[in-house]
Amino acid sequence: MRIVVMGGDGFLGSHFVDEAVKAGHAITVFDRFSGGHARNLEHQRGCVRFIAGEFANRDDVLQALRGQEIVYHFVSATNPATSWNNPFLEIEENLRHSVQLFELASKENVRKLVFMSSGGTVYGRQSGLIDETVLPRPFSPYGIGKCAIEHFLNYYHDHGYLTADIYRIGNAYGSRQPMHAPQGVIANWMARILDAEEIVAYGGADTVRDYVYVGDVARLLLQSVAQVSDAGIYNVGTGRGISITELLDIFGRVIDRPFRVRMEPRRDFDNPYVVLDSRRLIARCPGFQFSDFEEKLGETWEYVNLHYRKR
Amino acid sequence: MRIVVMGGDGFLGSHFVDEAVKAGHAITVFDRFSGGHARNLEHQRGCVRFIAGEFANRDDVLQALRGQEIVYHFVSATNPATSWNNPFLEIEENLRHSVQLFELASKENVRKLVFMSSGGTVYGRQSGLIDETVLPRPFSPYGIGKCAIEHFLNYYHDHGYLTADIYRIGNAYGSRQPMHAPQGVIANWMARILDAEEIVAYGGADTVRDYVYVGDVARLLLQSVAQVSDAGIYNVGTGRGISITELLDIFGRVIDRPFRVRMEPRRDFDNPYVVLDSRRLIARCPGFQFSDFEEKLGETWEYVNLHYRKR
Repeated sequence: MRIVVMGGDGFLGSHFVDEAVKAGHAITVFDRFSGGHARNLEHQRGCVRFIAGEFANRDDVLQALRGQEIVYHFVSATNPATSWNNPFLEIEENLRHSVQLFELASKENVRKLVFMSSGGTVYGRQSGLIDETVLPRPFSPYGIGKCAIEHFLNYYHDHGYLTADIYRIGNAYGSRQPMHAPQGVIANWMARILDAEEIVAYGGADTVRDYVYVGDVARLLLQSVAQVSDAGIYNVGTGRGISITELLDIFGRVIDRPFRVRMEPRRDFDNPYVVLDSRRLIARCPGFQFSDFEEKLGETWEYVNLHYRKR
Repeated sequence: MRIVVMGGDGFLGSHFVDEAVKAGHAITVFDRFSGGHARNLEHQRGCVRFIAGEFANRDDVLQALRGQEIVYHFVSATNPATSWNNPFLEIEENLRHSVQLFELASKENVRKLVFMSSGGTVYGRQSGLIDETVLPRPFSPYGIGKCAIEHFLNYYHDHGYLTADIYRIGNAYGSRQPMHAPQGVIANWMARILDAEEIVAYGGADTVRDYVYVGDVARLLLQSVAQVSDAGIYNVGTGRGISITELLDIFGRVIDRPFRVRMEPRRDFDNPYVVLDSRRLIARCPGFQFSDFEEKLGETWEYVNLHYRKR
């Protein structure tokens, strides 16, 4: 299949590109490639086509879409922290430009669009294991934007014939995750440990997340290619909830270096409890098993030890 | 209470203003008032304060909000038909400017915001009686925009202290409804009958709506003032589903003038089935009963016969 990966040089996107290349697909990566370099995909140079462009720019996006069968959409201009104080950024940068992408993809007769939504923010405050039939109650502009983008995919499905898969992904972690971003507690803590700074834990036993290994996510996302005419909404999480307190314990066992911790209350934009039921997705991926968290956390720590560069 | 009614000179808004004045509240109406005249509220001149302004204009909106306790938001730049071919209009005109209103209302310490959402488009395709716990699946930009605006009210509730009531209103009908708009089948048919043109029925037994009398809606909306610190989402519909075929029958009985009908298939942007369960709202309004449809349809027909002006 001819697949274009929008934002494919990022954390999640680049892992997906690696999986898709392995599976034999013809991959185009659309990203900024500032300074002419890939952040995460230099090893794929020659194996995939790189298109440098701005997601906001219609002509750049159109160039990337031409002749493609499937579009994977990994671009996000915001995160829950940055969008918290600026809802207009969410509307103008994420929502508006995503809808522009869908409009262009419809016109270019793309067969399928695959959108990375957010299991951590679309549902809002819930308790217990969350499946896809739960009523979304997003309370951050980031989650509200993701939800509206999902709904616009319904519109384009109805209006033209653009089929879509939507993945509501939990807290992905693993190699290549930006280490000084406001999002991604595991990468953030590892960076601080390597910098010999104290780590800041927002929340404790009251703040529970579903951490999912990025390599697992990348493999699961490929099922959209196998079943190209189906449309669906899928959670991507392990179903195992880990509190901030437990995460600190696990860090203590896995990380072979001492670290100091400062406890802070949960931030306003943080959801207290997100644990995802992904049975709908797993049923479509026979034989799939989620990786062991402690094992992959250890591998991630080894990776960042080799590749970490100070700010 | 000091209440500002955004878009208060429109069909629904003006009926609400009449009820709110009757109940003794201090009302400000924000609308365009093109040419210095009210479309529907000239009879209230002197009893309510008129502020002419553009909803898109921050300063105009700010002037209207100053010193107010409650904001009723009736403004809509689009309808399901116009938004169908232009999702960007929905994002830029409705969503963006509504969020601007909420931001300004938060800053001005308004106590409560009351938003007119849409029972006919927010839920998308459903069957049976729809209550507020049903998973929204909007498929038109209009419904997607309404849903995102609802979600942004969660954000402002969390972020500041702006409490909100959301009304998902069925097909309102009655006096003052625009008669040459793409929305509002009852007004549209009556106009065509008065013009001696054939009426166009989109859909038949397969297209079912919940028609709710505008005077009933206006009275129900006042409960937000009585319970100012509560927040809620409420359907506003009678729970009686009437198909296009039945509506034609009822027109035949109520309208004392012959008319010709052209049957057309349902349009893409029309939802097949919308019947709303409003028990949550009615439980808050002791003694309330919905008006009889045939009776109010007859009154509306008398009204338009007196007031109708050809295009």
